[in-house]
Amino acid sequence: MSYMNGIDRINDQQKNRRCKQINILSKGYADYLQLDKLLSSQTMLSSQNDRVSYDEHLFIITHQAYELWFKQILFEMDIVCKLLVANLWNNETEMCNALKRLGRISSIFKLLLEHFSILETMSSSDFAEFRGYLKHASGFQSLQFRMIENKFGLKKENRVDCCKSYTDCFNGKKSEEFERTLTEPNLLTLVCRWLESMPVLQDNTIWDQYRRAADLWLEESTETDISCLEKRRDLMDSLFKCDQHKRLVDQGNRKFTHQALKGAIILRTYRHEKGYALANRILDSLVDIDTMLSKWRFCHFVMVHKMIGSHNSGTGGTIGSEYLRSTLSDSYRTFIDLINLPALMVPATYVPPLISQIL
Amino acid sequence: MSYMNGIDRINDQQKNRRCKQINILSKGYADYLQLDKLLSSQTMLSSQNDRVSYDEHLFIITHQAYELWFKQILFEMDIVCKLLVANLWNNETEMCNALKRLGRISSIFKLLLEHFSILETMSSSDFAEFRGYLKHASGFQSLQFRMIENKFGLKKENRVDCCKSYTDCFNGKKSEEFERTLTEPNLLTLVCRWLESMPVLQDNTIWDQYRRAADLWLEESTETDISCLEKRRDLMDSLFKCDQHKRLVDQGNRKFTHQALKGAIILRTYRHEKGYALANRILDSLVDIDTMLSKWRFCHFVMVHKMIGSHNSGTGGTIGSEYLRSTLSDSYRTFIDLINLPALMVPATYVPPLISQIL
Amino acid sequence: MSYMNGIDRINDQQKNRRCKQINILSKGYADYLQLDKLLSSQTMLSSQNDRVSYDEHLFIITHQAYELWFKQILFEMDIVCKLLVANLWNNETEMCNALKRLGRISSIFKLLLEHFSILETMSSSDFAEFRGYLKHASGFQSLQFRMIENKFGLKKENRVDCCKSYTDCFNGKKSEEFERTLTEPNLLTLVCRWLESMPVLQDNTIWDQYRRAADLWLEESTETDISCLEKRRDLMDSLFKCDQHKRLVDQGNRKFTHQALKGAIILRTYRHEKGYALANRILDSLVDIDTMLSKWRFCHFVMVHKMIGSHNSGTGGTIGSEYLRSTLSDSYRTFIDLINLPALMVPATYVPPLISQIL
Amino acid sequence: MSYMNGIDRINDQQKNRRCKQINILSKGYADYLQLDKLLSSQTMLSSQNDRVSYDEHLFIITHQAYELWFKQILFEMDIVCKLLVANLWNNETEMCNALKRLGRISSIFKLLLEHFSILETMSSSDFAEFRGYLKHASGFQSLQFRMIENKFGLKKENRVDCCKSYTDCFNGKKSEEFERTLTEPNLLTLVCRWLESMPVLQDNTIWDQYRRAADLWLEESTETDISCLEKRRDLMDSLFKCDQHKRLVDQGNRKFTHQALKGAIILRTYRHEKGYALANRILDSLVDIDTMLSKWRFCHFVMVHKMIGSHNSGTGGTIGSEYLRSTLSDSYRTFIDLINLPALMVPATYVPPLISQIL
Repeated sequence: MSYMNGIDRINDQQKNRRCKQINILSKGYADYLQLDKLLSSQTMLSSQNDRVSYDEHLFIITHQAYELWFKQILFEMDIVCKLLVANLWNNETEMCNALKRLGRISSIFKLLLEHFSILETMSSSDFAEFRGYLKHASGFQSLQFRMIENKFGLKKENRVDCCKSYTDCFNGKKSEEFERTLTEPNLLTLVCRWLESMPVLQDNTIWDQYRRAADLWLEESTETDISCLEKRRDLMDSLFKCDQHKRLVDQGNRKFTHQALKGAIILRTYRHEKGYALANRILDSLVDIDTMLSKWRFCHFVMVHKMIGSHNSGTGGTIGSEYLRSTLSDSYRTFIDLINLPALMVPATYVPPLISQIL
Repeated sequence: MSYMNGIDRINDQQKNRRCKQINILSKGYADYLQLDKLLSSQTMLSSQNDRVSYDEHLFIITHQAYELWFKQILFEMDIVCKLLVANLWNNETEMCNALKRLGRISSIFKLLLEHFSILETMSSSDFAEFRGYLKHASGFQSLQFRMIENKFGLKKENRVDCCKSYTDCFNGKKSEEFERTLTEPNLLTLVCRWLESMPVLQDNTIWDQYRRAADLWLEESTETDISCLEKRRDLMDSLFKCDQHKRLVDQGNRKFTHQALKGAIILRTYRHEKGYALANRILDSLVDIDTMLSKWRFCHFVMVHKMIGSHNSGTGGTIGSEYLRSTLSDSYRTFIDLINLPALMVPATYVPPLISQIL
Repeated sequence: MSYMNGIDRINDQQKNRRCKQINILSKGYADYLQLDKLLSSQTMLSSQNDRVSYDEHLFIITHQAYELWFKQILFEMDIVCKLLVANLWNNETEMCNALKRLGRISSIFKLLLEHFSILETMSSSDFAEFRGYLKHASGFQSLQFRMIENKFGLKKENRVDCCKSYTDCFNGKKSEEFERTLTEPNLLTLVCRWLESMPVLQDNTIWDQYRRAADLWLEESTETDISCLEKRRDLMDSLFKCDQHKRLVDQGNRKFTHQALKGAIILRTYRHEKGYALANRILDSLVDIDTMLSKWRFCHFVMVHKMIGSHNSGTGGTIGSEYLRSTLSDSYRTFIDLINLPALMVPATYVPPLISQIL
Repeated sequence: MSYMNGIDRINDQQKNRRCKQINILSKGYADYLQLDKLLSSQTMLSSQNDRVSYDEHLFIITHQAYELWFKQILFEMDIVCKLLVANLWNNETEMCNALKRLGRISSIFKLLLEHFSILETMSSSDFAEFRGYLKHASGFQSLQFRMIENKFGLKKENRVDCCKSYTDCFNGKKSEEFERTLTEPNLLTLVCRWLESMPVLQDNTIWDQYRRAADLWLEESTETDISCLEKRRDLMDSLFKCDQHKRLVDQGNRKFTHQALKGAIILRTYRHEKGYALANRILDSLVDIDTMLSKWRFCHFVMVHKMIGSHNSGTGGTIGSEYLRSTLSDSYRTFIDLINLPALMVPATYVPPLISQIL
């Protein structure tokens, strides 16, 4: 087939797409955004009473805005998961795409943090005026937020006890979509698989080099504090000895597989090497998202604490702000291994350059 | 009636309210927020095609979030207008209430500014992929945004020509609620009435004093630049001579009534006096809101400019980013007179203290 | 003295002030801001090496920006403290002034939160490149941050153990100004004194009413959960029985005096009454500031955790991110009693109106 | 040389670097940040008077914070310029580095936008109290801001008339560093050179294809509005006819060279192709920075307008807020051609795939 024939064929395909576009339904702004549904979904419970609590309107709008953005976060996470399933290595375009999606999720969490500033223009006394009406409704029941947690890779065993059976409150309303967040591979799993499949890890050369570098570092150490040196040695053992790694996983202190952890270490170590820069930025983005979610949890806790105090119980039957405080532990952080990575890194001055690839 | 009888009667009323609360309907989180409607209102037009443009989802969510917050802004504006209709002078509680509402509107606009950061994670090329589907839908058609403008006090004659008949695009869908934003007293009108009713303005004493201070200032001026001095004299004339004020109003350069302008000047001058501090903060808040709306307009313009370039026409039949640029003029600013006030203030060192009230 | 004579005398004083202003030194922008000093204060330690770590420059600038804003926070806190020493009750002007200052401190903390977004454009690997140079320098040594904590009212006994002797690291460099943050009345003390001096609290009438309302509430309770009811009763006891309050103070769980706590409760209860609205907003502002400081602590912890991991020790001899995590407890929150207040409030439907003042 | 010998040699080099690090000077936090200089650089002019204007302190701190961040922006711009001078094509690591730097500059501008929220806690009346002291100091005189403008690529002829001789106010204080911002290649120039050097542009094949696609698009157009069609044809001519491009450049409406514009178009068109994704993100980042600078200009204008009104002259002899308003025009935007690009893009359905490279 000649070059021009190829072009002709492609042109024909494009022509078909062009024709299709002409026949699209014309819709106005209000129809497109389904504003009739959207803007008729605010019913203040306090309006049933003789004295409306105006701030309830803000309460509703803010939570609806949260749910809209949760939907967007779930949407972007699905795309990232799909990209991770495909092989990202050596695929600059898709890595950039993944980075864009991850960066957007971070930005959305940042925006959600800003939402608290609005809600906090309502004082605890303002809230007290309509709090009674919310007796059976609580943010604890947000299906989408649980889905986000599940898609990140938060497991039942990571949750605090009172939250382990959080699905009870959905009253059988759990959708298939929700179930899939539990059964399908989550972000944590897919990131691990991606790191495990890192080409340079497919034989032991590079990891053996890294281990030798670690040995040299410990050997040459001028650290005079014995307990400090001992601690460093233990850390290195937890990296190189599979059983020690396994123990940390069993205790819930590590979530990455051993091979994935090795991948992350190598990526960080050789981050200036050709082909590693973009992958490194993906690690950065995962850390960013995990950090943002963590900040969101904290700001949520602080806001609820401020609204109801800490001796009071929350709405919806949970134990209130103290429950939220307990979700701030590392056990709720999906990419804790990436965050703790700096403590496992052998200083650059000990690590040999990536000669194995060049040779 | 004895004191205890009074307390008893009030206690009975409260008892009734307490009983009522017990009978409230119990609702879960999802029902309360009507999430079934809210989260089923996102339909991507590009999904009708063989190639979905994922970023369309972000486009929809962002605009829906805007509309939710527009509803909240309208809600708060209504409360502020009601508070202004009642007499605010000497009513600390309601002034604080008004301040809270105005501050919240500012905060919401600030949050809306942040929304652009999310939308801008979509590049112009990403937008180009689904822009064709939006042919007949444009932000220009946002009924609620027009209502906000109207409630602020933006008049048809303040609008740029191409926007004067903006209601055409609603196709008769204008609600009664919309009509009321045109016929009922708006924020600008109500702020003017409130300032006009300022107690100390009800006779001429204080204004005559201010005028004498202005005369002294001009007289003692060490300014050697004649044109500069001339300009200052003209400004003072525009303040003290009704016909000159009227001319500026007719030209669209002033929007306050003469009496309201006097009120604002006196409030600013004696802002440290008893009874003036809160009212001054209301002026500050009005300036803040007008500023935030202005920033929103600019960021909107810049975003659209970035998405479609400046030689291109916008969706929905408008002339695109250039239309938005034209709305940045002072003619679109409702409280321009408060913003321009500093130029009309006689320096504090020339103004006599507020003795008239003490005497 | 006649009215006009009075005006004349004041005019003379003003004339003197006007003359003074004319003789002010004329300074350009760079001199005014002392830019020669400011912009010559960035020396990268890594530049002594053969390989400069460019990100160290960001590290320096960010920390310097923090210190500039810490200075501003201290400056505003001093003004607030002075205002609290003077009698604020019935002084609208000074209450508004205090509110403005407190609001500004909150805004500055909010800005400081945003600074983390910049610092976080540096990854942990970027930081690792120059971290070695900072061996003996740590944010732990920020004198101004300790001064802020002290001025808030954080006491030595509130601090975690490892931080109790934090002054050691200043090597005798502690200024008189620093000492004053320990010896002069702090914000917590002054807020307590202000609440204690609340006019309506000067006899027992109102508090007795509140206690009767609390009794009625407990009596009429339809709560069927015994443990929940018991808990509520304990809370009320902690409010009405001095010895129980004292025990909580001794345990470090309360920081307000009993009388100040009563003042806060009464203010919140009658927040819609004439003369109470502004004072209530001051309580709101104190809660806001405490919340913002808390968010700052969390974001600081998360950032450091991300930079160095959690098994690693921080610079400057502290135990790193785990130390920062420990400062997130309620014991570090100065206005914890205001934050926990909602749990101590008797529902509005039980509380009699503020008739005592009217009668 | 054997593999192990190579490793040995590298290990020796690293050993030397390790030894060096041990001898670094130990410095405390305060010395490292030169806090003695930094925190002694705030002198309020109003403190010479009998009545200090406390808000002047905020004014100084805010402007000093601006100048610190301006220094950081200049620092990052220098790095980006250096990276652009080296060949970025096919260099993933350095492209990522450039992206990080550009993203950081955007983030800093975003932070600077937030600074206005702090300054705006000061009302125009607060400012009026100390404005007299600033007679000869104006933000107009910020050397660093001019340097940023120059480094972006803003030319004398782009500036409004009153600003053309802006250097007069520096009184010979212009440093060599400042001169270099005028003589050395700026960001605009370097971006153009980088785009011109795009490998695929080195022969005409791809551009000829794009032109044919444009012809087909115009030919097949179903647009019935003649003037609209005419406008589109003119736009395409401005792209393909060098003399028309040159005329736009001479008028100041375009700033890119013709070849650079072609590069940008091709990059945008084939943004999903291997090797184009990262370069596209650099274009996005440049647009972002230009947009942020634009937003900064607007917020600065609005703030000054609010502080001094629009009939008043600014400090430092400029014409105040109206001067700032005039800098909002497109002539002040460096990457206006990237922003206007969407209007020049032929729809994707008309453009052939990047077959030329594959063949």
